[in-house]
Amino acid sequence: MPQCIELERRIVYFIMMHYASVALERVRGFRDIYPEESEPRKLIFSVSERSSEAFGFKKIEMPSVELLDLYRIKSGDELVSQCFSFEDKGGRQLTLTPEATPTVVRMLTARKDLSRPVKWYSFQKYWRYEEPQAGRQREFYQFNADIFGPSSAEVDAEVIGLASFILNGLGLKGHYRILLNDRSIMERILRENGINDFQKAFPLIDKFKKTDRDQFERDLSQLGMHESRVRKFCDLLERETPVEEAAEVLRAVIRYDEDDEEVRRFIKLSKLLPAYSSDTFFFDMSTVRGLAYYTGVVFEAFDIEGRFRSILGGGRYDSLAELYAGQSVPAIGFGMGDVILELVLRQLGLLSGKRREQRFYIASPDMSYYTSAVEIATQIRSDGIPASLNISDRNMGAQLKEANKEGATDLIVLGKQELDNHTVTWKHLVTGKQTVLRLDEFLDLLKNRGNQDIAFPSN
Amino acid sequence: MPQCIELERRIVYFIMMHYASVALERVRGFRDIYPEESEPRKLIFSVSERSSEAFGFKKIEMPSVELLDLYRIKSGDELVSQCFSFEDKGGRQLTLTPEATPTVVRMLTARKDLSRPVKWYSFQKYWRYEEPQAGRQREFYQFNADIFGPSSAEVDAEVIGLASFILNGLGLKGHYRILLNDRSIMERILRENGINDFQKAFPLIDKFKKTDRDQFERDLSQLGMHESRVRKFCDLLERETPVEEAAEVLRAVIRYDEDDEEVRRFIKLSKLLPAYSSDTFFFDMSTVRGLAYYTGVVFEAFDIEGRFRSILGGGRYDSLAELYAGQSVPAIGFGMGDVILELVLRQLGLLSGKRREQRFYIASPDMSYYTSAVEIATQIRSDGIPASLNISDRNMGAQLKEANKEGATDLIVLGKQELDNHTVTWKHLVTGKQTVLRLDEFLDLLKNRGNQDIAFPSN
Repeated sequence: MPQCIELERRIVYFIMMHYASVALERVRGFRDIYPEESEPRKLIFSVSERSSEAFGFKKIEMPSVELLDLYRIKSGDELVSQCFSFEDKGGRQLTLTPEATPTVVRMLTARKDLSRPVKWYSFQKYWRYEEPQAGRQREFYQFNADIFGPSSAEVDAEVIGLASFILNGLGLKGHYRILLNDRSIMERILRENGINDFQKAFPLIDKFKKTDRDQFERDLSQLGMHESRVRKFCDLLERETPVEEAAEVLRAVIRYDEDDEEVRRFIKLSKLLPAYSSDTFFFDMSTVRGLAYYTGVVFEAFDIEGRFRSILGGGRYDSLAELYAGQSVPAIGFGMGDVILELVLRQLGLLSGKRREQRFYIASPDMSYYTSAVEIATQIRSDGIPASLNISDRNMGAQLKEANKEGATDLIVLGKQELDNHTVTWKHLVTGKQTVLRLDEFLDLLKNRGNQDIAFPSN
Repeated sequence: MPQCIELERRIVYFIMMHYASVALERVRGFRDIYPEESEPRKLIFSVSERSSEAFGFKKIEMPSVELLDLYRIKSGDELVSQCFSFEDKGGRQLTLTPEATPTVVRMLTARKDLSRPVKWYSFQKYWRYEEPQAGRQREFYQFNADIFGPSSAEVDAEVIGLASFILNGLGLKGHYRILLNDRSIMERILRENGINDFQKAFPLIDKFKKTDRDQFERDLSQLGMHESRVRKFCDLLERETPVEEAAEVLRAVIRYDEDDEEVRRFIKLSKLLPAYSSDTFFFDMSTVRGLAYYTGVVFEAFDIEGRFRSILGGGRYDSLAELYAGQSVPAIGFGMGDVILELVLRQLGLLSGKRREQRFYIASPDMSYYTSAVEIATQIRSDGIPASLNISDRNMGAQLKEANKEGATDLIVLGKQELDNHTVTWKHLVTGKQTVLRLDEFLDLLKNRGNQDIAFPSN
């Protein structure tokens, strides 16, 4: 009978092998992230989380599946056509979430009891049904942060300041800049220059840097800008000014006085930002963000050499909650994907420069000492210092090789002599120094170290 | 013209309002996780990650979408019917991933260059198309850890030891136990008692504790167990023995000698485990795990009062890689969901007892001091201590209220007097003590504190 079952198992196996060649494929546009590639996301997430908490933001977690209609409201059919959408078993049109904002606004407006300002962040996966290409995957991670409630230059500064704080925390200070502009001011400038169709003008300006200048000037004229003004306007779009000088630039472009709320507010913001990070922020009138729903400041971060697409982007969107739920809730936020950021960090060598952390390997020539090895490992591990054990019966040479492969800094040897004498041999692999300690002495040393590294005795 | 656009906007808004009432729904079985509910997952993830790294495991990240066929191979139609599956725009049968193991095995067998043992962990979302109920959601998080490569009692002990290390790290020591058993030994016992159809026997035994005993005994007889043995066998299933006594129990049940590989290995494991955590592990012959693919040790963790379903579960599955890719790779692992674990932690009050962490609030009666406030906040935040600013123009009473709401421990006041004198007023909200410091003195204090809390001056 047991043979029968064994035979059945083998038949099943051969049938399954046919499937296997099909089923073992990864779906196109999706990534298997192995340990060596997992580091960037661990780093991005931990720096973003720590920074957000330091700014007083709280973490939320959102469903990864929503009704497709949720995206029709905000973004119309273009985004909807890029959604990884499907019909569920109940016949409803669902989608894997393509971005954070609609869900965040849904969660916000569902709760009447939240006292403002509401400061939320999140870090999760999103999906787009796009052709996979460099820097673009069908599945990606995105960090998001938003403040809902009061609307002021100070609120804007806190959100944009958080963006720079995170990038600085990742070691990018000096390697990126944040370009910013204000949509309401841009609407005024466009209007004063004869353009009223902002829905067409902003997507056009958004592509200014990628468009041939002659073509761009013709397009602007077609939208209604007088030819005499086109050239001067394009010159403006080309300038990037340190944000401290925004007031000067604006004075030459737009009529405003002391009571002008929109301009005054942007100038105030431009004076606050350098306190968050120096030499980081630039006023750039070609930064408008294509999407239709921004109402005030907009901003994007780029690597300083301009090699990659934007690292992060965001802005103020005061009308969205009204669109969704008939509630007026001022809002500002930004999103930052993992894909471009990883490329930037990698290019700058900011991923490989990780400091060598203390890591133990406990070797024993004979598995009968394993219980003692576990006791020692448990003590080392209890405050988070990694310790690996020899878990298969191998000779000392193979164990030492594994210790090196794992990047161990410290080797503990538990051999016959050590066990007979109740001692351990401790070899510091970095310096090559070696010492013998009494086992109880060694365990005491582990217990009383606080959360510091375990220092090799300096005798 | 601007009015025209405004009108258009309003028309769009009214049309959208019709959608909004539909689109603002959350999809059934999915959770919006607000900050107050986000804490458990942050805790579970950080303890699991730190513990895994301490054991030398490396993090992987897996796609959330796979071909549906991947799950047919391992689990047959039952799991497939619970999959959140759909046809994509290209007509392929895809599914949101319902569990980790098939993807982990796919990733493992796709790489020939990995030196063993391979020790991987992950923490991500999974989906099931089941009726939502208490402790069961359509979307949930699961932690997973596996070791591939060598197969030994020591490897088994490392994986099961990690499970206890994580639960202990969450503060659950004494509040849970891990029940374990061995499938190959159980197969022998069943065979010696006349049962050969393990595919039916294991799912039956898996439900032993939930089944009426008379009914259970009848079912066993039907599977071929001689009536004279049924009662004694059921008595065995009812016993939970401290794992140290496993050898004794087995000696009374099964014939084995010193060379008996399977029994010897399980007894060795039973002697190793207490070194990882005392009074935690119990030999329980009714623990078999329903799933068909386990080949050796199996284990599950339960809260000690037995209120909830299992907190985590796993076992050795040496044949799965062969089934998928024709490679023989010994494997052992476990999965731990967030839903039951959160219920257990909450019931024991282990979520609310978080220590009060240092947190600053910087108040100023006048927004013109905001730049100085940002400079101070940036210094405080730079080592991860949270600091909030007054970002809307409110009176001091409202600011103090917000500071309390946020759980601030320290209040910095920047008023006219302070700014004129280049000082800050620092109020320690816990003790009510208050002091005035020179601004440069205060900033120096912040810069030179290392990564410790910022101590209130003890003058």
